[in-house]
Amino acid sequence: MKHFDGFPHVMVSQQFSREWLEEEFFPLSDEMEKVFHGGGCDILKGKRMVSLFFQPSTRTKMSSEMAMDYLGGKVVFQTENAREFSSAAKGESFRDGIKVAARYRPDIINLRYDRQIALEVKAENDREVCDKIAAISDTPIINAGDRNPGQHPTQGLLDIRTIQNCQGGIDGKSIVMVGDLWSGRTVRSLCYQLGKFRHISIDFVSPKNLQMKDDVKDYLHRHGIPFTESTDLRKVVSECDVIYQTRTQTECGSSMDKKEGCFSINGEILSLLKKKDAIIMHPLPRGDEISEDVDNDPRAVYLTKQIDSGLVCRMALFTIIMGGKN
Amino acid sequence: MKHFDGFPHVMVSQQFSREWLEEEFFPLSDEMEKVFHGGGCDILKGKRMVSLFFQPSTRTKMSSEMAMDYLGGKVVFQTENAREFSSAAKGESFRDGIKVAARYRPDIINLRYDRQIALEVKAENDREVCDKIAAISDTPIINAGDRNPGQHPTQGLLDIRTIQNCQGGIDGKSIVMVGDLWSGRTVRSLCYQLGKFRHISIDFVSPKNLQMKDDVKDYLHRHGIPFTESTDLRKVVSECDVIYQTRTQTECGSSMDKKEGCFSINGEILSLLKKKDAIIMHPLPRGDEISEDVDNDPRAVYLTKQIDSGLVCRMALFTIIMGGKN
Amino acid sequence: MKHFDGFPHVMVSQQFSREWLEEEFFPLSDEMEKVFHGGGCDILKGKRMVSLFFQPSTRTKMSSEMAMDYLGGKVVFQTENAREFSSAAKGESFRDGIKVAARYRPDIINLRYDRQIALEVKAENDREVCDKIAAISDTPIINAGDRNPGQHPTQGLLDIRTIQNCQGGIDGKSIVMVGDLWSGRTVRSLCYQLGKFRHISIDFVSPKNLQMKDDVKDYLHRHGIPFTESTDLRKVVSECDVIYQTRTQTECGSSMDKKEGCFSINGEILSLLKKKDAIIMHPLPRGDEISEDVDNDPRAVYLTKQIDSGLVCRMALFTIIMGGKN
Repeated sequence: MKHFDGFPHVMVSQQFSREWLEEEFFPLSDEMEKVFHGGGCDILKGKRMVSLFFQPSTRTKMSSEMAMDYLGGKVVFQTENAREFSSAAKGESFRDGIKVAARYRPDIINLRYDRQIALEVKAENDREVCDKIAAISDTPIINAGDRNPGQHPTQGLLDIRTIQNCQGGIDGKSIVMVGDLWSGRTVRSLCYQLGKFRHISIDFVSPKNLQMKDDVKDYLHRHGIPFTESTDLRKVVSECDVIYQTRTQTECGSSMDKKEGCFSINGEILSLLKKKDAIIMHPLPRGDEISEDVDNDPRAVYLTKQIDSGLVCRMALFTIIMGGKN
Repeated sequence: MKHFDGFPHVMVSQQFSREWLEEEFFPLSDEMEKVFHGGGCDILKGKRMVSLFFQPSTRTKMSSEMAMDYLGGKVVFQTENAREFSSAAKGESFRDGIKVAARYRPDIINLRYDRQIALEVKAENDREVCDKIAAISDTPIINAGDRNPGQHPTQGLLDIRTIQNCQGGIDGKSIVMVGDLWSGRTVRSLCYQLGKFRHISIDFVSPKNLQMKDDVKDYLHRHGIPFTESTDLRKVVSECDVIYQTRTQTECGSSMDKKEGCFSINGEILSLLKKKDAIIMHPLPRGDEISEDVDNDPRAVYLTKQIDSGLVCRMALFTIIMGGKN
Repeated sequence: MKHFDGFPHVMVSQQFSREWLEEEFFPLSDEMEKVFHGGGCDILKGKRMVSLFFQPSTRTKMSSEMAMDYLGGKVVFQTENAREFSSAAKGESFRDGIKVAARYRPDIINLRYDRQIALEVKAENDREVCDKIAAISDTPIINAGDRNPGQHPTQGLLDIRTIQNCQGGIDGKSIVMVGDLWSGRTVRSLCYQLGKFRHISIDFVSPKNLQMKDDVKDYLHRHGIPFTESTDLRKVVSECDVIYQTRTQTECGSSMDKKEGCFSINGEILSLLKKKDAIIMHPLPRGDEISEDVDNDPRAVYLTKQIDSGLVCRMALFTIIMGGKN
């Protein structure tokens, strides 16, 4: 099996090449969907996960821990308690915390951290983060979402795989991303995934003060991905294949300057969305940015296929990281 | 096996008929008491519980999760963290949260919610709640206590079974309920259980501003259960079979207007309680409403048989809900 | 196997005699280190731990729960939620909480309590605590750290075993303890361990207002252990075998009056520390009282051998307490 860059640590979307996604990850995720519907397997029997969440995250934590169970592995310790671990100043506790957890020799550490991991390990850029993490821990560390604007690479994997499976491919697709793009780590991780594909076009729709940050835009430029920036979802939605609606990041202190209909999905948007096989995605939890009646539209996948993808993509990733040890 | 109304969801005490209690539930609970004392069994091997608690509850959560273990099942995800799940407005997140958790295909979801579930699902009345829940989730949902004044149906089951076992039957018993009856979901669920039995009489003792609510009193009227309302425990206790002392619901914002001896159990109450085989119950945790010296009276069951009942009743309920799947 | 005083409860360091440490505990801990590196065993298969933490503690909780897993046992319930359990006044809830948890018949209860357990059970002195606990619970209760100034006896065990293994023995060693000694339950538990050995000398270094309390100093006097008290680490460090640096107990409301270099370890202290085989210990988490460049000194064991000792000592202790039941 081909390894991804930075193996076995998972820190940013840039680690995963198109080749790896298409040859290793997507096929294994499809297999895992069958394992899931079959009730599970024992491939990770005896493997131990430590699950450290220093920000609330019911969904990512639940799907990661259930993924372990469906594979026959165990979560031997989990916490949602941020206070002590992250108490000390200046990131020293981050390194100490990882070193201690790794010392107990779990097979994987699933970590949601409440600051930016790159800053904690003094990485100059995204590519360097895995090297810095590797210097701290031999145990695989998964970034299960660090502080906005950061990344959420397992969400990026499940999102790109949702597009792949629902659309039958990624090349040539037109994607609209709407909401608080500045602090949305999920849209950031998805953009870093999309940059690897061809003939993609992206429309960013956000209030002016919450536009996508330059690091992502620079990356898209370098990879030849055209994008627009605008402030009204209604004007860009007609020909798109994917609408990715982000949530308002109230937990992170920023709030969206809401204008009626510009940044949220409702019946009017559905009527403007011409493509019958378009899909509507959302990382959840949702506030009022998608009205409830949208849920029943067959194009809404945020409570169905995107959720399933979250479980099976984590099953695939954990298998790739830990499966070879037996 | 006969199913209860609203099967497999457990939302309110009204779902359980007298016939079901006596023919299915009480006998299975007694069997489960033997399984418990024998160290457990494997009847739910491979079954998965998700345990979502959005209000603190050491006792209900602990006994539910240990019940799964004694049956050979697993708790594959648990949280005591309310913040994210319940962040969004107006109940939409309730439906989303349940849908997402159910999508991962656990065998049961044990849910303590911090608002009233009936309101969240827009049920017009208690009987409609299970239908509304069923429209959201195929996975069995257990109401492990919703916001006061709501219900706590598994507590209602363990309480009615405690009376059954300690008193050798329920018909003809005289029950005193004392404390904050307005917001006490446990006394509410117990009243909805008692309404199914015959020749019951109930004395409600509470401050005037914390009297039992009309929905329960209407239900008792319809079922021919006489009750009194008064403000001094000492005056009603002499001939009763059961004293059910509720706790002060400080966590819910209401507080009891305490008067010396009127609403709490101490040596004086014990001396007034004539029946040798009467029992004293409390849902715990206790404040100072039962003084510590009462614990050693053989009639006090709140730290002994009532606790055991909590475990074995949940073992019985989970077996009924999940046991038939294998 | 010889039992320790107060068996099976673990409340204070005084329970463990030198003979028991040397004949039972140290050898079994060494065996457990091999079990750990071999990936685990099944000696506690079927055993159940309840893990109740009413103060944050990532390290103690993690190593205890992982110790159970490495032995084949299970953590059937865990909480980090202090609110309800400890809500009621004056210790009544402590007894109720323990009684309820014990009623579910786990094999061990691992408890971090946010008040002093001795006060909760009205023990007159340390030796009486186990008797008082035994009157509440047949189930073994582990004090995983009670409120400062209290004790942390499993930390005391891992610390004395770290000295034993790194130094090849304890008799004759010179130990410096530095930091907030008044509220440091770890240094307190370690002193109660050291009193059993011979030709020990201790230097306490702390701000005047955070000196070691009299109960510990009286104990050392009675056991013939000489100690000094001073306010500058640099002046006592040259000939010592062990520096035990405590953390600032900000969570407990006291703060250390820091003076440059007096109470913290840095390159200057390393250069003054003459013995090549001295060791530097810390209970973690660390703030800025040990600078990061000290980590790479071979004498620093707080992120390596001391961590390992935490896991294997708990494995040994749990085996002694539960292993005989099968």
